Amino acid sequence: MMDFLEEPIPGVGTYDDFNTIDWVREKSRDRDRHREITNKSKESTWALIHSVSDAFSGWLLMLLIGLLSGSLAGLIDISAHWMTDLKEGICTGGIWFNHEHCCWNSQHVTFEDRDKCPEWNSWSQLIISTNEGAFAYIVNYFMYVLWALLFAFLAVSLVKVFAPYACGSGIPEIKTILSGFIIRGYLGKWTLIIKTVTLVLAVSSGLSLGKEGPLVHVACCCGNILCHCFNKYRKNEAKRREVLSAAAAAGVSVAFGAPIGGVLFSLEEVSYYFPLKTLWRSFFAALVAAFTLRSINPFGNSRLVLFYVEFHTPWHLFELVPFILLGIFGGLWGALFIRTNIAWCRKRKTTQLGKYPVIEVLVVTAITAILAFPNEYTRMSTSELISELFNDCGLLDSSKLCDYENRFNTSKAGELPDRPAGVGVYSAMWQLALTLILKIVITIFTFGMKIPSGLFIPSMAVGAIAGRLLGVGMEQLAYYHHDWAIFNSWCSQGADCITPGLYAMVGAAACLGGVTRMTVSLVVIMFELTGGLEYIVPLMAAAMTSKWVADALGREGIYDAHIRLNGYPFLEAKEEFAHKTLAMDVMKPRRNDPLLTVLTQDSMTVEDVETIISETTYSGFPVVVSRESQRLVGFVLRRDLIISVENARKKQDGVVSTSVIYFTEHSPPMPPYTPPTLKLWNILDLSPFTVTDLTPMEIVVDIFRKLGLRQCLVTHNGRLLGIITKKDVLKHIAQMANQDPDSILFN
Amino acid sequence: MMDFLEEPIPGVGTYDDFNTIDWVREKSRDRDRHREITNKSKESTWALIHSVSDAFSGWLLMLLIGLLSGSLAGLIDISAHWMTDLKEGICTGGIWFNHEHCCWNSQHVTFEDRDKCPEWNSWSQLIISTNEGAFAYIVNYFMYVLWALLFAFLAVSLVKVFAPYACGSGIPEIKTILSGFIIRGYLGKWTLIIKTVTLVLAVSSGLSLGKEGPLVHVACCCGNILCHCFNKYRKNEAKRREVLSAAAAAGVSVAFGAPIGGVLFSLEEVSYYFPLKTLWRSFFAALVAAFTLRSINPFGNSRLVLFYVEFHTPWHLFELVPFILLGIFGGLWGALFIRTNIAWCRKRKTTQLGKYPVIEVLVVTAITAILAFPNEYTRMSTSELISELFNDCGLLDSSKLCDYENRFNTSKAGELPDRPAGVGVYSAMWQLALTLILKIVITIFTFGMKIPSGLFIPSMAVGAIAGRLLGVGMEQLAYYHHDWAIFNSWCSQGADCITPGLYAMVGAAACLGGVTRMTVSLVVIMFELTGGLEYIVPLMAAAMTSKWVADALGREGIYDAHIRLNGYPFLEAKEEFAHKTLAMDVMKPRRNDPLLTVLTQDSMTVEDVETIISETTYSGFPVVVSRESQRLVGFVLRRDLIISVENARKKQDGVVSTSVIYFTEHSPPMPPYTPPTLKLWNILDLSPFTVTDLTPMEIVVDIFRKLGLRQCLVTHNGRLLGIITKKDVLKHIAQMANQDPDSILFN
Repeated sequence: MMDFLEEPIPGVGTYDDFNTIDWVREKSRDRDRHREITNKSKESTWALIHSVSDAFSGWLLMLLIGLLSGSLAGLIDISAHWMTDLKEGICTGGIWFNHEHCCWNSQHVTFEDRDKCPEWNSWSQLIISTNEGAFAYIVNYFMYVLWALLFAFLAVSLVKVFAPYACGSGIPEIKTILSGFIIRGYLGKWTLIIKTVTLVLAVSSGLSLGKEGPLVHVACCCGNILCHCFNKYRKNEAKRREVLSAAAAAGVSVAFGAPIGGVLFSLEEVSYYFPLKTLWRSFFAALVAAFTLRSINPFGNSRLVLFYVEFHTPWHLFELVPFILLGIFGGLWGALFIRTNIAWCRKRKTTQLGKYPVIEVLVVTAITAILAFPNEYTRMSTSELISELFNDCGLLDSSKLCDYENRFNTSKAGELPDRPAGVGVYSAMWQLALTLILKIVITIFTFGMKIPSGLFIPSMAVGAIAGRLLGVGMEQLAYYHHDWAIFNSWCSQGADCITPGLYAMVGAAACLGGVTRMTVSLVVIMFELTGGLEYIVPLMAAAMTSKWVADALGREGIYDAHIRLNGYPFLEAKEEFAHKTLAMDVMKPRRNDPLLTVLTQDSMTVEDVETIISETTYSGFPVVVSRESQRLVGFVLRRDLIISVENARKKQDGVVSTSVIYFTEHSPPMPPYTPPTLKLWNILDLSPFTVTDLTPMEIVVDIFRKLGLRQCLVTHNGRLLGIITKKDVLKHIAQMANQDPDSILFN
Repeated sequence: MMDFLEEPIPGVGTYDDFNTIDWVREKSRDRDRHREITNKSKESTWALIHSVSDAFSGWLLMLLIGLLSGSLAGLIDISAHWMTDLKEGICTGGIWFNHEHCCWNSQHVTFEDRDKCPEWNSWSQLIISTNEGAFAYIVNYFMYVLWALLFAFLAVSLVKVFAPYACGSGIPEIKTILSGFIIRGYLGKWTLIIKTVTLVLAVSSGLSLGKEGPLVHVACCCGNILCHCFNKYRKNEAKRREVLSAAAAAGVSVAFGAPIGGVLFSLEEVSYYFPLKTLWRSFFAALVAAFTLRSINPFGNSRLVLFYVEFHTPWHLFELVPFILLGIFGGLWGALFIRTNIAWCRKRKTTQLGKYPVIEVLVVTAITAILAFPNEYTRMSTSELISELFNDCGLLDSSKLCDYENRFNTSKAGELPDRPAGVGVYSAMWQLALTLILKIVITIFTFGMKIPSGLFIPSMAVGAIAGRLLGVGMEQLAYYHHDWAIFNSWCSQGADCITPGLYAMVGAAACLGGVTRMTVSLVVIMFELTGGLEYIVPLMAAAMTSKWVADALGREGIYDAHIRLNGYPFLEAKEEFAHKTLAMDVMKPRRNDPLLTVLTQDSMTVEDVETIISETTYSGFPVVVSRESQRLVGFVLRRDLIISVENARKKQDGVVSTSVIYFTEHSPPMPPYTPPTLKLWNILDLSPFTVTDLTPMEIVVDIFRKLGLRQCLVTHNGRLLGIITKKDVLKHIAQMANQDPDSILFN
C-alpha cells in the first residue's frame, strides 16, 4: 500500500522501548493522515480507491484477526486435549486420536461404557500388558508424572530460551501496553509461536492453570502481527491499540465461546482507549473468531467450550441465600489468593528462588502430578472437571456425581425429582473436597511461574467445586426436610427443585469475580455459557457479593496487583484519586531543587543545547520566550531534539556549535558572517498542555487519563513553574496510597 | 439524610435553565463531598453508618428505578393492549378484559377459534346486534375511527395543556441532557404522569408509532424523580446524569426485554459520560426492571415482549445474499426516512402548520384509521403485526401467513418442510405490501407530532414486512426450484430450509439500524429477542450493510438529526473533527472585535464589576493580574459573581460601590477610612483550562468532549488572548460542515 505521509527526518515521532506514547500526538497524526487521503481522493480514481480501501482496511484486519485467533484457539484446544490424554495412554486405532475420539471410532463400545474401548490402551497395558493390580497402577502413575514433567520441562525451557515474554497470562502486560506503554517484542511473532506451543504443553502437564488468559495474549499477538500488513495501523501506536483492544475481545470470545462477553471484557477490563467505533469492530472480530472456532469444532459437540450447559429447572427466591454465601466465599477466596500469590511472587522476585525457574516449574509439576493422580477429579483436565460440575444430572449420566438412589424411577418423563444421594455421590463429595484444597493451595504457587498460565479456569474450578458441594448439600437438605418452613412453600416431595449444577456455576462466577473483579463482562460470559436469561439474577447476586467482599479486603484485582508488583506505569482508570493535593505538590522541580531546565526560543546555540542534553535525562524540555519572563512557547521532546540536531550537524551545511537555534516561525535577519542558524520550529509542540499550580491533583489525574498525556506543564499567573510527567503522577498516587513510590520502574 | 456540605451562599454553584453544566466542577464537588464523608466516618459510629449508607444509596436508587420503570412499563403494556382492543369491541364478561383475556375465560371456545367467543362483542353486535353484513362493517369501521380520534385528541390535548415536554420520543433531548445541558421540567413528575397516560392513548389510537422510545423517557423521568430522595444525586448534576444513563438502560431493557442490549444502547447511543461503575449499576437497574416486568407478565406468556421468537432451522451461508439485500433496503429506507421526516419537521417549525398541533394530530389519526381498518395487518397493533411476521409457522398456527398447502402432512414429527404457499399466503402478501406502503408514508408524518411517539416499532414493522415478503419469496423459489445450483447443495425437496420469520427479523434489524445507526446494541437487542447465538451473523451482516448504506447517504441518525433540527448544544462524541483550523480561528474576541472583557485581581471596585455585568452577557470572566500583563489568574462565573456581589451588598457591613474587590488570597492592609474590601477568592476558579492559540481545533474539540468543559481560555506565550465556549465550538463545527452556525440556539 502507498503512504502519502512522509516523515522529514527518520525517527522523529517514534518511541523508545519502555516508553509511554503520547496519545494526543498519535491521534493528531492519524487525523492528518486521514485528511490527506480524503483530500487526495478527490483528485484521481486511484486515490479514491486507496481512500476506500483505507477505510475498509480496519474491517479486513478484524476479519483476519478473527480467523487467525479462532484457528489458533481450535488448534490449541485439539492439541491440549490429545496431549492431556497422552499422559494416561494412547490410541492404537491411530495415535492422533484422543481418548474420546478413539472410542468414538470403536465398534466394541456400549453407551454405558463410552470411556472403555479396546483401542484405548493405558500405559500399563502397553508396557506390562495389563490394567489390573497394584503394579499396573504404579506404572500408570509413573508414566503420568513422567509425561507431566516432560511437558512442563519443555514448556519452561522453550519460554526461557526463545521468548521470555511468553510466560504468565499476559493480561497485566496487555493492559499496560493498551494504556500506552511500549514493550517491544511482547506481541511479536516469536512470542506468538512460543506461547501457542508452550500453552499446549503447560495445559497438558496437568498444572493448575488455564488457557483462557493466555489466549487473550495469543489473540493480541495475532492482532499486532497483522497490523504490520496495514500502513494505517503499523505506523500509528494509537490506532494499533484500537486493534489490540478488538483482538483481546476476540481472545475472550474464543476462550469462552462468548462474543458479547468478550467485547465487554475488553471494554471493562483491558482497554484504555475504547471509542465506539472500536466496540463495533471488536464485536465483529469476536464473532468471526467464535464462528471460526465453531467450524473447527474442537470438542465435537458444535459448542465453543467444553462447559456449555443448559438448565431446565427455575430457581427459587430463597436460593439467593446460598448464592450470596457462594459470593462471600468467592470474595474471600479471591482476596486471599491475591494476597498470598502476590506475596509468593514478591518472594520469587527478591530471593534466590527466581533464578531457578526450570527447577521451580519441575517441582511444582511433580507435586501437582503426584497429588493429582490418585484422585479422579484432580487427574482429569480442569475444564473437564468444570464441565462435570456444571452438568445437570440427566437420566443417562453415568458419572459418580449423578449416582443417586432411585435414579431411574422418575415420576414424569424428563423430570428428575430431588433424590437421596447414593454411595457414589458421597464418595465424590470427599474427593471433591480434597480437590478443592489441592486447587486452592497449588494455584497460589502456579500462577506467576515462567510458563503460560491463565487464572480463569483454576478460579472457576475452585468456585465450581465449592458450589457443587453446597448444591448437593442443599439438595439433600431439601429432600430430607422438605417440610421445613423454608422449603415447604416451593419444594414439595418428589419435586425437582434444586439444581446442584447451577450452584457450581454460581460458585465459579463468584470465585472468578473475586480474583479478577470483573462485573458486567463476568455475568455476560456466564450468561452466554448457559444461554438462559433466567440465571442472570443468581449470577449477578454472587458476582456483586463477591466483588464487595473482595474489595473490602483489598482494592486491587489480580491483574492490577501484578501490574503494581512489576512496576508497570499503568494509570488506573477506574479508581478515583481521592486526595486533596495540588499540582504544585507534585510538579518538578520541588521547592529546593535547581530551577526547571528550559530552552529559550531564540537565544541558545547548538552547543548550549547539546550541553543540556548531555547533562540531563529529561525526556523533553519546555521552550520559553526568555529565562526572565518564563513565558511558555512550546515543548520539545528530547528524542526529536537529539535526532534533529544530529541530523543538522551531518547534513545542513555550516551548522556549527555556535549556531543559534530558533524555535520561532521566522528567524530574524542575521548579520553577515555569523554561522547559519538552525530552525527547529517544526519539531516544537506548540500546544503543550498546561495547568495552573493550584489545580487539584484529582483534575490533573483525570486529564492524564482521559487525554492520555505524557507530560503537562505547570504555570502560575501565566509564568512557567514546573512540569508533571506521567511518572510523577504515578509516583504521587503510590505515595498517597502509602506505597513505595520508587516501585514505578519505567518512565 | 444529612448533608455535611454547606453552601456558603445559596445559589452559588447551581445552573440556570438552558445552560450547560461544568462537568469538571461537578465531579470535583462530588469528590469533595465523598472525602468529607470518608473523613468524618472515622469520628463516630453514626457518621460511619452514614458513610456506608451513602455508598450503598446508588444501588438502592438503581433498585427503585428498576422496580418503578418495570412496573410502569407493565402498566403501559396492559392498558395499551386493552385500549387497542376497545376500538373493536368490549368484553361482556368484564369490560376490563382485552380480547385475548376475554376469550381465555370463556367456556365456549375451541383452540381453532381462539379469537371468537360469545363474551367478546364487537361494536356492531352491541349497537345493532349483528356482526354480519355491510352495515355492521360500517358501524365497526365508524367506531374504530371514532375511538382512534378520541384517543388521539385526548393525548394531544393532555400534552398541550399539562406537559409540552411529553411529546416525541424524548431520546434526542435525553442525549442532550446527558451531555450536560439543563432543561428544567423535562424529566419532572408532570412529564412522567402525562407521558405515561398519553403514551397509552397514542399507542391505542392506532397511529404508526411505538412505545419503546418514550419508555426510555419514562424511565429517565423515574430516575430523575427518585434522585430527589438522595442528597448525593439531587445536588450534583454530574452524578445525576450517571443515574439517568442507567435509567435509560432500564427503559430499553423493559421495552425489548433485553437487559444487556439496554445497557449497550445506553452506552452506545444516549450516554455521554459513562464510567465503568455506571455500566455495572445500569446492568443491575436493567435487570431489576426486566424481572419486575416479567413478574407483572403483561402478555400472559412469561415473556417480556410480544415478539419473542425461537427459531429452529439453521441458516445457510448463501442466505447472506438476501440478508445483505435487506440491509441495503434498511439503509436506503433509513436515509430516506430521516431526510423526509426532517424536511417535514422543519416545515412544521417554520410554517403555520406548527401552530395547530391538535388539528394535525387529528388529521393524521383520521387518515391512518380510515386507511388502516380495511386491512387486517394495519388494523392490528404494530407490535402484534411484528410478532406475527417474526413467527415461524408451526403446526397449530392458524394465521393467514401460515396457510400453506399440505400444511398438515409433515414427513417427520415437528419438522415443517418448505411447502407451496396457499391462497391465504398470497392474499397476505398483497395485504402486507399495502401495509408496507402505508407504514412507510404515514410514519414520516407521524414522528415529530405533539404526542409521545417512538420510532423503533414502526421501523421494525417496515423492515419486518419487507423481510417477510422476501422470505416467503425465497421459500417459494427454493420449493419450486430446489434443483437450481444455488439451492441444490443444501435445500433438497421436502427439507425445511428457509425460515421466512428469520428474514422478517433481519429486515427489522436492518431498518432499525438504518434509522438509528445503532450497531452493537441493535444486534444484541435482536439477539436477546431470539436467544440464539446462531442468528447473530445474519443480524450483524444486515446491520453492517444498513449502516454503511445509510451513512453513505447522510451521516446523521434520526436522533442526531432531530438534535440539530432543534438546535440543542450537543457535542457529538462519535464524529471526529476533521478540519485543520486552530484555536485562534475560533476564539472570541475575533480579530476586529473589542478586547476581551477581563477582571483584574486587585484593582476593580464593586461599581466597575457591576458595570461590566450589566453591559455584557458573557457567562463568565477571566481574572488577570493586570490589564497590561494579561497574565491569567483564574476564571469567575457570571452567576456566582452576581450572587456574591448582591449578597455582600445586602449582608456585609459597609460594602459600597467604591469597595475594591480582591480576587487574591490575602488582601493587602488597607489605609484607614477606605471602604471595606470585598474578598471573592472563594468563588474564583483557580484552575481554568487553557490552550495555546496554535492548538489545533481537533484537540480542542477532544478536550471539550472528554473533560466536559463549558469554556476554555486561549493564551499566547503566556498571555491571555481569548476564550472559547462550548457554543463557539458547536458553531464552528456547524460552520465547517457548511451549516448555519446560528442554528445553535442555546449557550
